[in-house]
Amino acid sequence: IFPKHENFANRHNGPSVEQRKKMLETLGVESIDDLINKTVPQQIRLDKDLDLQDSVCKSCENEILDRLNLIAKQNRCDWRSFIGMGYYNCCVPRTIVRNMLENPGWSTPYTPYQPELAQGRLESLINYQTMVVDMTGLDIANASLLDEATAAAEAVSLCFRHNKRRKFYVDEKINPQALEVVRTRAGLIGIEIFVEKLERMDFSCRDFSGVLIQYPDTEGRVFDFSDVIEDAHTHGSLVACSTDLLALALIKSPGELGCDIALGSSQRFGVPLNYGGPHAAFFAVRNEFKRLMPGRMVGVTRDVHGKKVYRLALQTREQHIRRAKATSNICTAQALLANMSAMFAVHGPQGIKHLANRVHNAALLLAHGIHKAGHFLVHSNFFDTIMVHMTSGVHDIYRRSGEKKINLRIYNGGRVIPLNTQIGVALDETVHIDNNLHNKLKCKSAELGGKLEGNLNDSPFKRETDYLTHPIFHKYRSETNIVRYMKKLENKDVSLVHSMIPLGSCTMKLNATAEMEPISWREFANIHPFVPMDQARGYEELLKELDRDLCEITGYDSICFQPNSGAQGEFTGLAAIKAYHKSIGQHQRSVCLIPTLCTRHTNPASAQMCGMKVVPVKVDKSGSVDVVDLQRLAHKYSDNLSAIMLTYPSTNGVFEEDIRETCDMIHDLGGQVYVDGANMNAQVGLCRPGDYGSDVSHLNLHKTFCIPHGGAGGPGMGPNWGEGSTWYPSLPTHPVVPPHGSILPHAKPTGSPWGSACILPISWTYIKLMGPKGLKEASEIAILNANYMAQRLKGHYDILFTGKNGFVAHEFIIDTRGFEATSGVEAVDIAKRLQDYGFHAPTMSWPVTNTLMIEPTESEDKDELDRFCDALISIRNEIKEVEEGKVDRELNMLKLAPHTLETISADQWDRPYTRTQAAFPLPYLKPDAKMWPATGRIDDAYGDKNLVCTCPPMDDYHEDD
Amino acid sequence: IFPKHENFANRHNGPSVEQRKKMLETLGVESIDDLINKTVPQQIRLDKDLDLQDSVCKSCENEILDRLNLIAKQNRCDWRSFIGMGYYNCCVPRTIVRNMLENPGWSTPYTPYQPELAQGRLESLINYQTMVVDMTGLDIANASLLDEATAAAEAVSLCFRHNKRRKFYVDEKINPQALEVVRTRAGLIGIEIFVEKLERMDFSCRDFSGVLIQYPDTEGRVFDFSDVIEDAHTHGSLVACSTDLLALALIKSPGELGCDIALGSSQRFGVPLNYGGPHAAFFAVRNEFKRLMPGRMVGVTRDVHGKKVYRLALQTREQHIRRAKATSNICTAQALLANMSAMFAVHGPQGIKHLANRVHNAALLLAHGIHKAGHFLVHSNFFDTIMVHMTSGVHDIYRRSGEKKINLRIYNGGRVIPLNTQIGVALDETVHIDNNLHNKLKCKSAELGGKLEGNLNDSPFKRETDYLTHPIFHKYRSETNIVRYMKKLENKDVSLVHSMIPLGSCTMKLNATAEMEPISWREFANIHPFVPMDQARGYEELLKELDRDLCEITGYDSICFQPNSGAQGEFTGLAAIKAYHKSIGQHQRSVCLIPTLCTRHTNPASAQMCGMKVVPVKVDKSGSVDVVDLQRLAHKYSDNLSAIMLTYPSTNGVFEEDIRETCDMIHDLGGQVYVDGANMNAQVGLCRPGDYGSDVSHLNLHKTFCIPHGGAGGPGMGPNWGEGSTWYPSLPTHPVVPPHGSILPHAKPTGSPWGSACILPISWTYIKLMGPKGLKEASEIAILNANYMAQRLKGHYDILFTGKNGFVAHEFIIDTRGFEATSGVEAVDIAKRLQDYGFHAPTMSWPVTNTLMIEPTESEDKDELDRFCDALISIRNEIKEVEEGKVDRELNMLKLAPHTLETISADQWDRPYTRTQAAFPLPYLKPDAKMWPATGRIDDAYGDKNLVCTCPPMDDYHEDD
Repeated sequence: IFPKHENFANRHNGPSVEQRKKMLETLGVESIDDLINKTVPQQIRLDKDLDLQDSVCKSCENEILDRLNLIAKQNRCDWRSFIGMGYYNCCVPRTIVRNMLENPGWSTPYTPYQPELAQGRLESLINYQTMVVDMTGLDIANASLLDEATAAAEAVSLCFRHNKRRKFYVDEKINPQALEVVRTRAGLIGIEIFVEKLERMDFSCRDFSGVLIQYPDTEGRVFDFSDVIEDAHTHGSLVACSTDLLALALIKSPGELGCDIALGSSQRFGVPLNYGGPHAAFFAVRNEFKRLMPGRMVGVTRDVHGKKVYRLALQTREQHIRRAKATSNICTAQALLANMSAMFAVHGPQGIKHLANRVHNAALLLAHGIHKAGHFLVHSNFFDTIMVHMTSGVHDIYRRSGEKKINLRIYNGGRVIPLNTQIGVALDETVHIDNNLHNKLKCKSAELGGKLEGNLNDSPFKRETDYLTHPIFHKYRSETNIVRYMKKLENKDVSLVHSMIPLGSCTMKLNATAEMEPISWREFANIHPFVPMDQARGYEELLKELDRDLCEITGYDSICFQPNSGAQGEFTGLAAIKAYHKSIGQHQRSVCLIPTLCTRHTNPASAQMCGMKVVPVKVDKSGSVDVVDLQRLAHKYSDNLSAIMLTYPSTNGVFEEDIRETCDMIHDLGGQVYVDGANMNAQVGLCRPGDYGSDVSHLNLHKTFCIPHGGAGGPGMGPNWGEGSTWYPSLPTHPVVPPHGSILPHAKPTGSPWGSACILPISWTYIKLMGPKGLKEASEIAILNANYMAQRLKGHYDILFTGKNGFVAHEFIIDTRGFEATSGVEAVDIAKRLQDYGFHAPTMSWPVTNTLMIEPTESEDKDELDRFCDALISIRNEIKEVEEGKVDRELNMLKLAPHTLETISADQWDRPYTRTQAAFPLPYLKPDAKMWPATGRIDDAYGDKNLVCTCPPMDDYHEDD
Repeated sequence: IFPKHENFANRHNGPSVEQRKKMLETLGVESIDDLINKTVPQQIRLDKDLDLQDSVCKSCENEILDRLNLIAKQNRCDWRSFIGMGYYNCCVPRTIVRNMLENPGWSTPYTPYQPELAQGRLESLINYQTMVVDMTGLDIANASLLDEATAAAEAVSLCFRHNKRRKFYVDEKINPQALEVVRTRAGLIGIEIFVEKLERMDFSCRDFSGVLIQYPDTEGRVFDFSDVIEDAHTHGSLVACSTDLLALALIKSPGELGCDIALGSSQRFGVPLNYGGPHAAFFAVRNEFKRLMPGRMVGVTRDVHGKKVYRLALQTREQHIRRAKATSNICTAQALLANMSAMFAVHGPQGIKHLANRVHNAALLLAHGIHKAGHFLVHSNFFDTIMVHMTSGVHDIYRRSGEKKINLRIYNGGRVIPLNTQIGVALDETVHIDNNLHNKLKCKSAELGGKLEGNLNDSPFKRETDYLTHPIFHKYRSETNIVRYMKKLENKDVSLVHSMIPLGSCTMKLNATAEMEPISWREFANIHPFVPMDQARGYEELLKELDRDLCEITGYDSICFQPNSGAQGEFTGLAAIKAYHKSIGQHQRSVCLIPTLCTRHTNPASAQMCGMKVVPVKVDKSGSVDVVDLQRLAHKYSDNLSAIMLTYPSTNGVFEEDIRETCDMIHDLGGQVYVDGANMNAQVGLCRPGDYGSDVSHLNLHKTFCIPHGGAGGPGMGPNWGEGSTWYPSLPTHPVVPPHGSILPHAKPTGSPWGSACILPISWTYIKLMGPKGLKEASEIAILNANYMAQRLKGHYDILFTGKNGFVAHEFIIDTRGFEATSGVEAVDIAKRLQDYGFHAPTMSWPVTNTLMIEPTESEDKDELDRFCDALISIRNEIKEVEEGKVDRELNMLKLAPHTLETISADQWDRPYTRTQAAFPLPYLKPDAKMWPATGRIDDAYGDKNLVCTCPPMDDYHEDD
């Protein structure tokens, strides 16, 4: 009589009831249940409905958002934080929020592995790199790491990769959370960290790999460390500098000072606090270290027509090539956040300098007042952060800052403990004279006239070099121009708003607006990660509910929200296994079994980073783990066996029948089972890793739980599951903030207590919107969609692996290896030709070289699946023409793909096929709605040989730019 | 020492400091002051800075938004309204909010007068029309009017246009606010309104033009009025039906019942309450009345290639053609809101029907409970609104509804007066069992099992016909699909995110994100217009501040926010003048002088609608009002002179020197001066209508004060200024809500007390962001930009009118009349050819036929102005080639423009020019960033001859749709 308002699952899942019926007919199965029974092994099936919290009765998005709004309001964003420590309030330009962060055209593209369809965000990311290079004074920068703390750890690794020395100095005045992450990461790979005062560092024994210094330091001090640099360099040690982009607008850059590496967070360039994340971290090095650089780097190269274009540079550094040799597992970037910062910088150097001076002058004014009030300034040179030794009235200060709803930093070896006499005040661009800071500090507002003492602009630290001189940072000052620039870049890129992006293992499904909306609510966005816990009760409740629901979905007992990417989740999970073995006295267990083919490329890298020995396990012809080889190796290493890393269903697209037996065997030998959560989206509601024997997993929330890819796999979020069948020691030791709700990890993977906390509302909302039935249905439809496509393609391509009943899981591989011999066509040619059909290619050459792995997800409807299949079938026919000798092996539409609009609209046309055949090969492709590749096929080798990772000279831009 | 955070004006105004310098050089003036001195007559210049409220110190957008957030929070959106009366809570799909309402690609296009660049929103609007036609069961619908009340008034006018009878019946049970608007509008043109019970209506004397009935009526009753229809029709009267789209999902449509006209609000189809507006009103008629239809209508036609395309149909009905003969002044549409409703309907008929049944069942359940509690249901057949006669406990009900924060409707002839015994409860799709309605009404929740009595589905009223059967309402059910559909349509249309839209008099300037953001805050969006005043204190404060600031800007004394479009503002202002003359006993004054050329096309229509006699005044060669003719006419009609309507600076783009003298003369003769506020954007901070002698103006907030056009001139907002030099009687008489803050108008132009209240935050924010200096600078830069363009174009085109020093105001006309003789090229050819250059044409053939009027606005920078000038100059050279006989007079790039991508990419090319010349005639045009016209040149006549105003059959869609 009174039905629910709406069933959101009907909006999330693509195929309509009628379409589902037709698809089942095509598959020759009776029902979806029938299909699932034939696909997911009976013995691991979940035999109950998921018991999720509060999912009864409500499923309309507006109702769910109303509820979340009540939760959000418990976060006290009316308090103002002056805590600093790498996180600053900033005025996020609203036009960037709306047209970039909140715009699915920017938030839903995939990693730019198909650069012809990604020139927009690649251009923006190279702006980011240029900005970082300019501000830091170094030669080359990447397009973002995860956060300042992990970037610091990456610096340590880089130094080690360079000179292989196993000791490392860290200045005692770096941010405590960064220190902890560095310690964790270094410790696991056997690098010894020495925390020391700068003046006591001694490099002369030549066994120090390098030194990490923070400038300005965690107490706000701006200081001269040229002696240390000289000393380090003299003895073959490198110098890494954790720094602040805004301060660098006024003070000499690390590059000028002689540092080898600069790193930090670009959060204060236009990204909200987000309760700790996501933000983008920057990382820049001298030219000689460019091939040691972690993470993604955008470079300039040329396309087949000789046009300058962008693409990811030096990809051979990445782990999918290096695998077990990798010393970094970073395989993503915070691209969306980096783009926000890049666009912030595009506003121009005058603006940045203005902000820097404003913040600095505010700090000087405040310092003046504090001094006049009789308190003691611990440091005399500072940019925006003042450390104060209170001579009196400490209690009063605490009381009054509470009344004024102000959070200060309390120093005590980095811990927040009340009633210390040293406090810190970190100012930022949002500060006002009327913020009552002076009053609060019991002193009158300083004189506003005259010259301010201590001004860095009058000091030897003053920066004399220019920055952001490239025209790109000058052309788009007005909002009209910057909006058009963002739109122009957006429109070059394929994203989910255009067509399906069927990337195997990367799960490009719907990121619904209702899920995305909460992340820009001020109650979630404007909270400093180190506020007292009672100001973040909203987050606490959210984490608690999400914890409970995700545990129910996976069958695990608890969860950690600190890892901020999938790879970080792996690392944290393996570290937990290591800690567990240590806790029961089995220190020797350090072998990690990893199947050769069916694994994420970060698996071995993460194991490496935990100091584990990676032992590869063979895969049999059916794509499953070779049980014989596995048994052999497991027994061979049984004394030292730490873990096995599996992916389930396998990356080959199959639900292996014997997963439970495999887990049992490992357990019997004293090992632990790590199931990579990459394919959790095929399991939700159907089976649970915790049930069939896994001990730890990480989840890619940005895949299964709807956090968007953001244009480059980030913002990622990789919660780490613990305590499946085994008790793990939990060590809740974030250096600044005590935990609430969830356990903290054994390793400190990131600098903020709950990683990329601000995007967790996306997953929370998704789960609430879908409810138990909807979530299960999503898994089912994902499997239905994949099987439907496989069925349609079967006669045209070989499907590489299927389960015992001939069905695939939620993804499958088509074998394109044979075409090279018959026609010279490789997988890459098919991928590029797909662009002409308006589609982004599936995952290419992974996990099997020269094949394509397709994952449609549940969000695509039958019409879109059919269009994609039609395209692949049409391409198969084009290959046939080559095979039959009707068409030249080189001069054909596949080898010359993709075809740009420039080519198609040129006055001259001298190809052995028509323009229509090239650009509109199927009827669904119409000139008024086609997505065009922005460039011809890209020449990767050229760019890597002639590495340019900053904005090219203006001549290379189009005149309309 | 401590500078402001940001100067927003630097972001709003396009040209940088360096660019301004260069532009001044080109103009040969020393400074901007110099330019303004030579442009704006000295004798009317404002000699002080504007004294705006609270504009000191803050200019960063985040600070201003923080302040507005505090204001917004005073609106009590935690109260829930069950008031109804044409305004209902609804669950606005978040994806439509984000991807349409909040997307500048949808909010910033202009009216689709260049249909080749507007196919996206035209398609969406035809979906809207199809939805209205389907739901109402009538033959043809327009693409939205302003609100239900004005739509009702338009229905009265239509009936009058049809049969010229001067009496009209209105059922006493229509919404009171609609009745008041009908009364006002009818009264002014001499139509007598008879409010009557249905059963007492008598049409037999054949002097009634028609009858207006509301179904379901304002008390919620669903009833049979076929007798009335038959009787009316028998005697030549028409039947108009105000109705509810959601109810029509269950009950017989007005068309089936035999009505001639159906109208109402489409708000509850996916548009927030918005404190009364903006929403779109629908209007549908039988085929025979289609040429009498008010407002904009989208129709199908063909382009030059024979392809089916969309464009505005039957434009000859509009006032710019009919001028003084018009009986409607509607010249805009609520396109953005209509598009939201259309996209809501695209979700499909099942969804609509589900919602309707859910709401209806909730009403039945509630009625059951009320009945059981012993109260009396006034009507037994109802859809969602129940009228209750309370038998006891009335005080208790009031108290408890207050405690539960619930607003009910209190009946008392439509007025809210406490402690009546009749209350109304209007349910809507957001209702829940747990909304505590039953409790509140002191009765237990009804039994949830069994059949509900009074179900319309079991009644003779049950709708038997289908609706939304067109495939367009079935294809895009999933969110993935609907997002892609919205994106595909968006990308067909030129908007401000692509390039300048230099429409003379239409002021397409920046609509900054910071200005747009607040309108989707729930505190502004989720308030019913008839809530008690103490629940809308936020709006009150906003209106008060905006009132004060706008008064300061214009030099007037007070302001009315009720008109919801510019034309409505004109109407209200003229009605005020009429009321004034009446109040001083000068009933005979009814002549309105209006210059022939230099006026908005709605001016005479609005005067007509106020029952004034329009007397045209000549314009001299320089484009100014012909003073001799004006004096002659003013004196000739001095006894009956009511008003003169002027535009200043004139629509010809000139600050006339003698404006003050003109005003004085009119005053001396007893007349009033109405200055059209269309060009206020050239005056802000420089001069004020209130100072130089105007008595009344309206402001187009959507032009000068940054409310975006929304794709078709709407949402508009036309505040009306009163009490310049004369005292006006103010009659604060909204039928439902007493005024707060601002005066209410003499006429009731619209149904909600403050018109399109929800978009006022846009203008508030703009004024705060810019401050007095910024606002003045905007006017100056607008004038600078126009003069720079005029200067650059001077050698190539004749500038039609300039001021005494040779400068233009903020816009100017280029004379293209001569080309027809020399080359056969008309203004329209230049307009279409501009599309090939990536630009939307300027205003065409208005105010002078076969010319182009260009208004760059202050938001465009020099680069964009140069590109536009380059395009026009290049086109001039193309014309020259024709003139010189080098190129054929018919087969040339101008006559064959615009060139679609389909043409350019075709295999065949047989034109006497190259593809490059056609599509990329200047270097700034690049294939990877060009905006393409979606169709070839459109054949208007064909579409008007073969009128189709609903979605064409699916065969005509592209297969990729």
